Amino acid sequence: MTLLTSPPDTLTPLGTALRVALDGPFADARALARATFPADNLLRDPSGSLEEAREWVLRRLRELQDAGFGATGIPTSATDPPDPEAAVITFEMLAHGDLSVTIKSGVQFGLFGGAVANLGTAWHHDTFLSDITGLRLLGCFAMTELGHGSDVAGLETTIIYDPKAEDFVVDTPTPQATKAYLGNAATHGRMAVVFGQLVVAGVRQGVHAILVPIRDEAGRDLPGVTTGDQGRKGGLLGVDNGTLAFDHVRVPREMLLDRYGGVDDQGQYHSAIPEPNRRFFTMLGTLVRGRVCIAAAGGIAARRGLSIATRYALRRRQFVAPGGSEGILLLDYLTHQRRLFPLLARSYALGFAQNEVTRALVRIQGEGEASVRDQRELETRAAGLKAITTWFANGTLQECREACGGAGYLSENQLTGLRADVDVFATFEGDNTVLLQLVTKALLTDYSQTWGDLDRAGVVQATARLVGGTVLERTAANLLIERLVAAARRRPEETTLVDRGWHAWMFEERERHSLESLARRMRAAGRKPGDFEAFNRLGDHVQFVARAHLERVVLEAFIAGIAACPDPEVRAVLERLCSLYALTSLHQDRAWFLEHSRLSPGRARAMGEQVNALCRELRPDALAVVEGLGVPEAWLGAALLSV
Amino acid sequence: MTLLTSPPDTLTPLGTALRVALDGPFADARALARATFPADNLLRDPSGSLEEAREWVLRRLRELQDAGFGATGIPTSATDPPDPEAAVITFEMLAHGDLSVTIKSGVQFGLFGGAVANLGTAWHHDTFLSDITGLRLLGCFAMTELGHGSDVAGLETTIIYDPKAEDFVVDTPTPQATKAYLGNAATHGRMAVVFGQLVVAGVRQGVHAILVPIRDEAGRDLPGVTTGDQGRKGGLLGVDNGTLAFDHVRVPREMLLDRYGGVDDQGQYHSAIPEPNRRFFTMLGTLVRGRVCIAAAGGIAARRGLSIATRYALRRRQFVAPGGSEGILLLDYLTHQRRLFPLLARSYALGFAQNEVTRALVRIQGEGEASVRDQRELETRAAGLKAITTWFANGTLQECREACGGAGYLSENQLTGLRADVDVFATFEGDNTVLLQLVTKALLTDYSQTWGDLDRAGVVQATARLVGGTVLERTAANLLIERLVAAARRRPEETTLVDRGWHAWMFEERERHSLESLARRMRAAGRKPGDFEAFNRLGDHVQFVARAHLERVVLEAFIAGIAACPDPEVRAVLERLCSLYALTSLHQDRAWFLEHSRLSPGRARAMGEQVNALCRELRPDALAVVEGLGVPEAWLGAALLSV
Repeated sequence: MTLLTSPPDTLTPLGTALRVALDGPFADARALARATFPADNLLRDPSGSLEEAREWVLRRLRELQDAGFGATGIPTSATDPPDPEAAVITFEMLAHGDLSVTIKSGVQFGLFGGAVANLGTAWHHDTFLSDITGLRLLGCFAMTELGHGSDVAGLETTIIYDPKAEDFVVDTPTPQATKAYLGNAATHGRMAVVFGQLVVAGVRQGVHAILVPIRDEAGRDLPGVTTGDQGRKGGLLGVDNGTLAFDHVRVPREMLLDRYGGVDDQGQYHSAIPEPNRRFFTMLGTLVRGRVCIAAAGGIAARRGLSIATRYALRRRQFVAPGGSEGILLLDYLTHQRRLFPLLARSYALGFAQNEVTRALVRIQGEGEASVRDQRELETRAAGLKAITTWFANGTLQECREACGGAGYLSENQLTGLRADVDVFATFEGDNTVLLQLVTKALLTDYSQTWGDLDRAGVVQATARLVGGTVLERTAANLLIERLVAAARRRPEETTLVDRGWHAWMFEERERHSLESLARRMRAAGRKPGDFEAFNRLGDHVQFVARAHLERVVLEAFIAGIAACPDPEVRAVLERLCSLYALTSLHQDRAWFLEHSRLSPGRARAMGEQVNALCRELRPDALAVVEGLGVPEAWLGAALLSV
Repeated sequence: MTLLTSPPDTLTPLGTALRVALDGPFADARALARATFPADNLLRDPSGSLEEAREWVLRRLRELQDAGFGATGIPTSATDPPDPEAAVITFEMLAHGDLSVTIKSGVQFGLFGGAVANLGTAWHHDTFLSDITGLRLLGCFAMTELGHGSDVAGLETTIIYDPKAEDFVVDTPTPQATKAYLGNAATHGRMAVVFGQLVVAGVRQGVHAILVPIRDEAGRDLPGVTTGDQGRKGGLLGVDNGTLAFDHVRVPREMLLDRYGGVDDQGQYHSAIPEPNRRFFTMLGTLVRGRVCIAAAGGIAARRGLSIATRYALRRRQFVAPGGSEGILLLDYLTHQRRLFPLLARSYALGFAQNEVTRALVRIQGEGEASVRDQRELETRAAGLKAITTWFANGTLQECREACGGAGYLSENQLTGLRADVDVFATFEGDNTVLLQLVTKALLTDYSQTWGDLDRAGVVQATARLVGGTVLERTAANLLIERLVAAARRRPEETTLVDRGWHAWMFEERERHSLESLARRMRAAGRKPGDFEAFNRLGDHVQFVARAHLERVVLEAFIAGIAACPDPEVRAVLERLCSLYALTSLHQDRAWFLEHSRLSPGRARAMGEQVNALCRELRPDALAVVEGLGVPEAWLGAALLSV
């Protein structure tokens, strides 16, 4: 078959330069991917039935695989090295089309294939990876149970070793232990990576993963396996989510994915990681790419929405100004600018942060430069970025829908479909609220490791010297940011509202102070960082700390991204976007800054006007800013842009 | 056919009492409606095609009509009086089922029928109303054009009188003048109320409405009429939205809906309202019931979502507490309470406000007690309540979806479908952002009428005496609120965070100060209340004033609702909900209060903890609070509640 490549994307010079800047270290790879991505047949006809949607998506997945946008970067054998950069960039490209395809690809290659690659050993790799990456063996990632979503350590499914038969018995002991919400489970899957409590010789070894065949070639459930179809969902109609239940299903010993723990031919359990909980979290850690990919896809979905809504606002007129003859463009309304421009700015900001997380992933998984600390930092950032980016995508797509009025509600204009698909991004690969708890937990652990031995007075003194220290480790452009912050601290009264040093300083203050006060409150309650009830009672504070941390990481990535841009004209636009991002974030939290005497009431009030001023300054470059997001206009597929 | 009525709804005594309190002046009418509403076949199977959805909805509408839940309250002839109470309560009941049915009913009876009833005269009533209310003549409300949504006064469609033929020529002069997003236009409509610029003897008389037949009995477009199908949308799949274009279509003279302006048999235009713009807004004013109904339906949709998510959180467990054996109920997590309880509280608050607006509608449209001032106040409140309630519904349903995790994403659990349907409520019957501009415009007009002649110093002095004055006219329970506020003002240092007088005072301050400062800023810029550019530049301030006003109206309605409740135990729960509503609103805007020295940083920080305390206090009554929302459990139709 012939696949058309996308028509050439005609950009303004500024738009081209912004795109290169935002693509950052992956500019060449992304440009190549855009140029070669098969962009016909990009969007699914939403009028199809559930069955048609599922079949269309599987067909499309095969097409993309043939065109080199399938399992790219996933190893195909034990000797094939993974290429996380290629994997993430492929996933990003897929997110420019029907998101069911993107997610189905993630289920098959990222989760199912990824589990075999990361949790399995040579035999699994050589036996299964080629069929998995070639789409000859479709499979499920069977972790979540009906009764256990966020609490994965509490899974009820059992994997019990039978030393006589030398096999494992996989069982679903209660209805709540039924595996649920699994892509590929309703129809296409033939095998599943099943997570459950491993029991060997009567001893529980914690959660492990095992490969279980679930259907025969004809699609019939295998003996002991009950598959279920979870039917229609709020979106992602082309992903066949379903349930799996096992009634004492026997699986040969070698099917256990035993990289981190297995059973030898003497029936002995062995693992290099003695503590079961740590072992399990090590296993989960290898799946970090999933969260990086979901954040990436969420970010792309938001960019698609913003591209549609902003381009529409550059065509659509409403109301004739007094004395005028032609209607006023939507984007000339300040109210409309205030709706879209801060979202555009944040879209850039998150894009730069995404680049850094992706680079860290490549360093750690691709190049093997992984200290435990680096690995944990990557997990924390991937979790946090996944949460804030997917929420951002949901909010942004809704704002874009409303900004396009009734036209935004028509399926032909893509926004409602995108919004419906992205909705569940806030839940899968980790519930966003729970992910932010993880972020804060990690920060508190760092914090207590650094300051744990000091008494309270000591902590206060020590944290006064903290700037640039370990808790607030720099993401990038360290020296530059140090210098900017130091200058702002020396003469705070001279800083303007667009002073980058003041922004960075305030972002630091928000993170550091809220983290310190959380640690103090937990200490006062006699709680440790991982303590459940403390987290429950301090829930709001916990969420705030995580957001403050992530906002700082994002701002610093933005600053580093600008520093890497050679062209002063381009830098000027990026600086405005960065100011708009920073000020919007500070403005939204200005109550906190006022409550903690970091901001005067007068300055707080002036921030709103400064946001308005930045919007007006950005207005002439609006089209270039949208082009910089990197979504080719021809791929948007929104009817409202074709009239 | 037989229609089952709903199974008896077993409630706790507290739940029953809360329901009666929240139903307020309409308790009997709503209880009767709930008891007689045909509740089988309530929800549409989402797997049907577009065509099946449309046909199902039309069938269902006929069923409901037969059961007495159709055109209730809409007059069927010139001598039949309207019954707005029955109309609104019927609409509310419909909103407990498939929302496409609700909206289709609104299009047919409320908009199409309502336009004929309110804008037409005896001949139109006697000729058409019986067929309209009997669903024998389906029709469209053809106001919005592709190029003119919010700017209805700028419609391009022309209605030109031809004195020779004694008929009107209806024409769509440009593609942008095509009527769009019209329910009943894609397939079922046979006639339309078409809004366009009336021209008589070469003189433009502003926008008028005329009845135009669009299809023959077989469903074919009539000569000169082009109908279009806008296909699939983000939701409301059962409403057949489409387009209409007219190529010099001739319509007999009597088809003009001429209550506010018509052409006599001499070809002379006549109207009791000389100024065209005022005439048009008088016409629009008669359609206020639509906004009241949409607000009501949005409120019910939010209640359905909250009922599902809260009841689920009372069953679903996740994580076992340290030392415990059973999992923790979701609703025992403070984080989860903070997600749902403020929304429950706001749902009550909006419900009480909705009761007051409905009562005002009944007084003005049903009992004819309408001063111009009353009528305008009703329009302002209906517009504002529509905006804040529909946004609330969207946000709430999304929160409920996420609070139910992956289960929330399955169609069988109703939340995504509700969310998708409610989405466009923020746009139709007036874009929410534009509606809030209308609210502020009305407040500024009142304000300038009261204070317009004073110079600036005079205004400041005068407003210092404003409490209880005309700008902040009381909605209800006037004396009680006066007394509460006065007590709080006397001893502000003694007020607790749950002092109702302090709440009411702060709500007043927020409204009054923001309105005054907006008036000052507009005056400083030399602008009048209706000035376009001033509104553009002060967009954020304009939105803030409207919200502050509406929040105050809502709080006062809540206070009045509690005052009307005789039972102290029930009142105690309502007081907690009211405190939670008030504190959440103040907490969200605490930056404003800090910036304007209405709040100390310490008190601002304490508000978050007080919200937590209220959540804990409400926890034991959670089920009763949900029951009070008035959605029978059996109607929820969410699979996750049946396991």
